[in-house]
Amino acid sequence: MTDRKNLIDVALGKISPDLIIKGGNLVNVNTREIYKTDVALKGNRIAYIGDAKKLNTNYSKIINVSGKFLVPGLMDAHFHTESSMLTLAELTRALVPRGVIGLMADPHEIANVLGAKGIELFMREAKNLPLRVFLRVPGQVPAAPGVETTGGKLSLSETKKMLEWENTVALAGDVNVSIILNKKREHLEKIEHAIKLKKTVAGQAFGLSDNELNAFVAAGLEDSHVSKSAGEVLRKIRNGLKAILASRPFEIFTPEDFKTLAETVKKDNLDTRNLLLCVDDKMAHDIARDGHIDQAIRIAIREGFDSITAVQMATINIAEHFRINRDFGSISPGKIADIVILNDLEKVDADEVIVNGKIVARNGKFLAKVNHFEYPKWAKKTMHLKKKINTNDLVVTIKSNLKRVKTRIIVVGVPKEEIIEELPVKDHEVLPILEKDILRMAVVERHKKTGNICKGFINGVGIKSGAMATSYSHDHHNIFVVGVNRLDMTTCVNELVKSGGGLIAVHKG
Amino acid sequence: MTDRKNLIDVALGKISPDLIIKGGNLVNVNTREIYKTDVALKGNRIAYIGDAKKLNTNYSKIINVSGKFLVPGLMDAHFHTESSMLTLAELTRALVPRGVIGLMADPHEIANVLGAKGIELFMREAKNLPLRVFLRVPGQVPAAPGVETTGGKLSLSETKKMLEWENTVALAGDVNVSIILNKKREHLEKIEHAIKLKKTVAGQAFGLSDNELNAFVAAGLEDSHVSKSAGEVLRKIRNGLKAILASRPFEIFTPEDFKTLAETVKKDNLDTRNLLLCVDDKMAHDIARDGHIDQAIRIAIREGFDSITAVQMATINIAEHFRINRDFGSISPGKIADIVILNDLEKVDADEVIVNGKIVARNGKFLAKVNHFEYPKWAKKTMHLKKKINTNDLVVTIKSNLKRVKTRIIVVGVPKEEIIEELPVKDHEVLPILEKDILRMAVVERHKKTGNICKGFINGVGIKSGAMATSYSHDHHNIFVVGVNRLDMTTCVNELVKSGGGLIAVHKG
Repeated sequence: MTDRKNLIDVALGKISPDLIIKGGNLVNVNTREIYKTDVALKGNRIAYIGDAKKLNTNYSKIINVSGKFLVPGLMDAHFHTESSMLTLAELTRALVPRGVIGLMADPHEIANVLGAKGIELFMREAKNLPLRVFLRVPGQVPAAPGVETTGGKLSLSETKKMLEWENTVALAGDVNVSIILNKKREHLEKIEHAIKLKKTVAGQAFGLSDNELNAFVAAGLEDSHVSKSAGEVLRKIRNGLKAILASRPFEIFTPEDFKTLAETVKKDNLDTRNLLLCVDDKMAHDIARDGHIDQAIRIAIREGFDSITAVQMATINIAEHFRINRDFGSISPGKIADIVILNDLEKVDADEVIVNGKIVARNGKFLAKVNHFEYPKWAKKTMHLKKKINTNDLVVTIKSNLKRVKTRIIVVGVPKEEIIEELPVKDHEVLPILEKDILRMAVVERHKKTGNICKGFINGVGIKSGAMATSYSHDHHNIFVVGVNRLDMTTCVNELVKSGGGLIAVHKG
Repeated sequence: MTDRKNLIDVALGKISPDLIIKGGNLVNVNTREIYKTDVALKGNRIAYIGDAKKLNTNYSKIINVSGKFLVPGLMDAHFHTESSMLTLAELTRALVPRGVIGLMADPHEIANVLGAKGIELFMREAKNLPLRVFLRVPGQVPAAPGVETTGGKLSLSETKKMLEWENTVALAGDVNVSIILNKKREHLEKIEHAIKLKKTVAGQAFGLSDNELNAFVAAGLEDSHVSKSAGEVLRKIRNGLKAILASRPFEIFTPEDFKTLAETVKKDNLDTRNLLLCVDDKMAHDIARDGHIDQAIRIAIREGFDSITAVQMATINIAEHFRINRDFGSISPGKIADIVILNDLEKVDADEVIVNGKIVARNGKFLAKVNHFEYPKWAKKTMHLKKKINTNDLVVTIKSNLKRVKTRIIVVGVPKEEIIEELPVKDHEVLPILEKDILRMAVVERHKKTGNICKGFINGVGIKSGAMATSYSHDHHNIFVVGVNRLDMTTCVNELVKSGGGLIAVHKG
């Protein structure tokens, strides 16, 4: 309560604000206006917006931002931080200087490896960071029960408990839509619990028929972060869903889709309050090169959205959807002081970044101190194999003496698509065809020492020799290995296990 | 959960909806579009919106509404039902046929008479009505502590308890702004409690300076239902407040103000999500003649607001502000089926009204059965006087022998304004001057048998003989009596006490 009293006293000119941001152009996401004004902070909140001359500024620090633009801390409505390959501390250093301050994070990758204990650790690391990590409790771990072995599962009771955490904003949406359409009891119970707690119910749905889309929304779902066209987005917001536009993998919601959507919005004067932005998954080097939600905003503006509307899609619209708008999402008196000062509104290039009332980044440089969070050993030792792999473990053999065998081949990047090819056989071992880019592959279970190894062939990888492997394989995160040479493949797997997991490539030993 | 399962099954065409509203023009407050579509209900919720041909309609009742308009149940963001002079049951019959289905009610009149027990009764009457009464817990009862005697008070702990009730949406806003600016501890505690419970913090503020307005918002306030000009509304929504436009007493937010605001919105393409409508206070006969929120929407449209935007101001904007948008405020799958079918959108003239999935009114006629709620005797016997009033109790006397005396006179309708006039004195009794419309008046305490009677003179009432009195006198509700003739005044008070309170006029006995 002391905080609010201080805010009142600052606003009334009785005591000095701590910091005054002077002369900037306020991007007002409440009204969709831009105008020049001062913003005064006290502690970690905004106390006053208006002419600073009307305040007592005897003891205030003043920064002059004339000609620059003030936007609320940018947020991402749906992000898997694990896909960045960074811990939260490192991600903070990557995102905050860009003005990205709030993540609605769905840590279902950690959950697939470590279960609820992993999420607890994740949220412990999130504490005291200048990056705000709000939890979307993973809705379905494992993602494909019965078809994959994972290290962690989330039970109904664990899910319910996590929904009750203070920083939890939602039951998360990476859930197979069939679970909802088939009225799976356990998932409907999760939804009911989230509703009871006034948390948001998130989802993903695309390519649904009218009937299915209606069923999806009627079941209690409030958003979808996968839409493949402007038309699909329209159908969703008409039905009362929030449409979260995933700009990241351009094959999902492309710049062209943004353009079509922006044209429709303009032509029909549509309400845009139900449009939100997200990045979903993005690797560290892609973030470093292209940006994050700042890039999504740039794309939206470039493709025709009014710049303030684009900023709303990454601020107030997200805050309202996740019911955190009392404290976040706009630059207004009483709100937490998360403010990004941009050199140029359309470029979304952060000059200074203020989190919780403190300047934490300037000119792309992160200035704050982030305490290193030491993950416990058990969380880092997650490569559990029964025994070292040997070369024979990764090859496909047949019993017969056939010299060629018709084989089903997985195609990279096209789920459920396959090609059929006759592969040569030598000494009962089925061989790849390098010239046709048909390589060996295997998935080696690494969570529970089941010894399960699934072997096959794959088209579309394109390497000409050696092998590569990764323990980063959505969503089960077993070891996926692909290669030309079976010896190199074996080395890949064994070295990856030794090193604790990651990415590896081996060439001629 | 059964409900949701049924909704899913209806949407998927597996079972029949109960009711199909066929061929109407849906006013989509999610996107701001109007288009022709069907709406299917199951139980008390909306199951499907789209072509009914895609459903299983074997067992469905179908109503054809071609050419008509479907809007969500209309809501009022701030209303004192007591001012209508109707019980909730009767108010239901007055409002629901007009499509007004949801009231954010602040029963501070009842609280001033009966305290927390009165609000409990009120909310008990509200149960099972086809009118949805959401509670805004009165923020300040009595309104002017120390200056008036009321029958009820609301303590901090009673207020906190009521904030926890399920149907409570807000800490209500009829609070003197000085309490906030002066950081009154008790009120800040109420605000903190409301925030903790994720309830809305409502307020009223007008004519504030920039400093005061900032302090008001920084203190945690989220709306203001009093604004006296379009400019004031703009200043508020810029600061992140929701501006609730009180259309009722035209001297507050006039049609001219609506016009100016609509012009500004259009010119600057302002975001209107923070504009809401309310009626505040309105007598039964005014509702019967002019309407309620339906009239507010008509005014907004007539003065230049786009018709869908005006409907949003009485539906989704209110639902979002009071955090009940999961169930109310739009016609979308999964929402409670409160739907108004209008003959004409701009006239806002309800043809049929559906509440909780049932048709409850048609062509202005209320069709549902409303159980009479019997208020207990103690709630109806609230006129407590020490003894019968006699004529001498209501006159102003002086000790001196002066023949004329300079007197301060209250002016009707202008708070804090007075005129000074020399009044004649006869036998120590100060007399009114009928020709100057200066009449006798008194306020007789009627809650606690204090025997307090406050006497004086008033200008602007305009009656030429006799007397009138009422126990309906905001907000303390003591007996206010005014008149020419002191005998008639005495009769007024004594008869009002006998009858249990109300309005009375007496002429020549």
